[in-house]
Amino acid sequence: MTDLTLYSMPSSGNSYKARLLLAFLERPYRHVGIEYETPELDATHKAGTLPLKKLPVLQLKDGTRLPESNAILCYLADGTDWLPPNPVDRAQVLAWMFWEQNQHESVIAVRAALLTYANRQHFATPERLADLLNRGHALLAQMEDHLAPRDWLVGDFPTIADIALYAYTHSAASKGRFEMDRFPSIQAWLDRLSNLPGHITLDDIPA
Amino acid sequence: MTDLTLYSMPSSGNSYKARLLLAFLERPYRHVGIEYETPELDATHKAGTLPLKKLPVLQLKDGTRLPESNAILCYLADGTDWLPPNPVDRAQVLAWMFWEQNQHESVIAVRAALLTYANRQHFATPERLADLLNRGHALLAQMEDHLAPRDWLVGDFPTIADIALYAYTHSAASKGRFEMDRFPSIQAWLDRLSNLPGHITLDDIPA
Repeated sequence: MTDLTLYSMPSSGNSYKARLLLAFLERPYRHVGIEYETPELDATHKAGTLPLKKLPVLQLKDGTRLPESNAILCYLADGTDWLPPNPVDRAQVLAWMFWEQNQHESVIAVRAALLTYANRQHFATPERLADLLNRGHALLAQMEDHLAPRDWLVGDFPTIADIALYAYTHSAASKGRFEMDRFPSIQAWLDRLSNLPGHITLDDIPA
Repeated sequence: MTDLTLYSMPSSGNSYKARLLLAFLERPYRHVGIEYETPELDATHKAGTLPLKKLPVLQLKDGTRLPESNAILCYLADGTDWLPPNPVDRAQVLAWMFWEQNQHESVIAVRAALLTYANRQHFATPERLADLLNRGHALLAQMEDHLAPRDWLVGDFPTIADIALYAYTHSAASKGRFEMDRFPSIQAWLDRLSNLPGHITLDDIPA
């Protein structure tokens, strides 16, 4: 018996963040997969069981449901090595995570979604895709500059900032068709995170 | 002499969040205003002094610069009544703040910016403005439903989640031309926050 239930979307990078941290932490949980564009997702929305109308959602033992992938990471990481105790380091971790949701996800993940999900392809005009490509490369260049002299985004160890940025960066080439060859320090950082003990891929969905 | 320097954009809701919390906390700080579309902002970007290339930035006594408005709120609020100590409440506060940066700011603030800043008006097609209006009203309806039975977004007292959402919601009618008459619980919540001791307006810029 486990105290945690994760409602997650198998194909979503935001949901993958929570599954990845739970795997690194070796925390057992019950997994409820709800895929995009399915009757199950429609039913879940109609039932009103998703706070803020998004996945993933972490349900605690008492039934409390926590939404927002990065808030879930903060909750699970608190008190572990994935969230440093020093207030300034914590603020820097949070800064990258807010930047991820405001800047990175809204460009890198959105371009990938436009190229991936059938019901969004009418939004995928050539002009919009080109604009997202250019803006995405500019954001990736910021990460590249920051990571060039460093192993991890904040401090000397991996944190939930790395997990938050890894989720959509690791598939930026395959799903978003970004030119990741231009960013060798990002590639080295992705490899470092992929090689940590306990790492799972996006497709490693719990039974 | 004060330990804190805030680099902030006078007209920006994100920068206003930091000024507002500092006012509520009665914390003294040095203020450096850098307005949008000015030679000062260009020079600051060229000098590379803005981590993540955004304002506001909070500079600490040792020179460390913290970016991202919501990360700055977390840093300043930690240990005060504005950020509850309970881990579940903290996660709910963070969830609203990540939602703000991912969903709310990218619609409500973007529509306001398109209507406000001269150099963005060529992006402001009627179709885009109408889409942002509809999506904004849907997001505001989520806030309305949540606030209808409550005084504050999380728990029984104001938190930095309220400040984060207040920043662009309080000007959604005047700058974004959203129909705020439809959302009486939001209006009551805005009034509650505006009436707290220490409240300052967007235009109350420190000397």
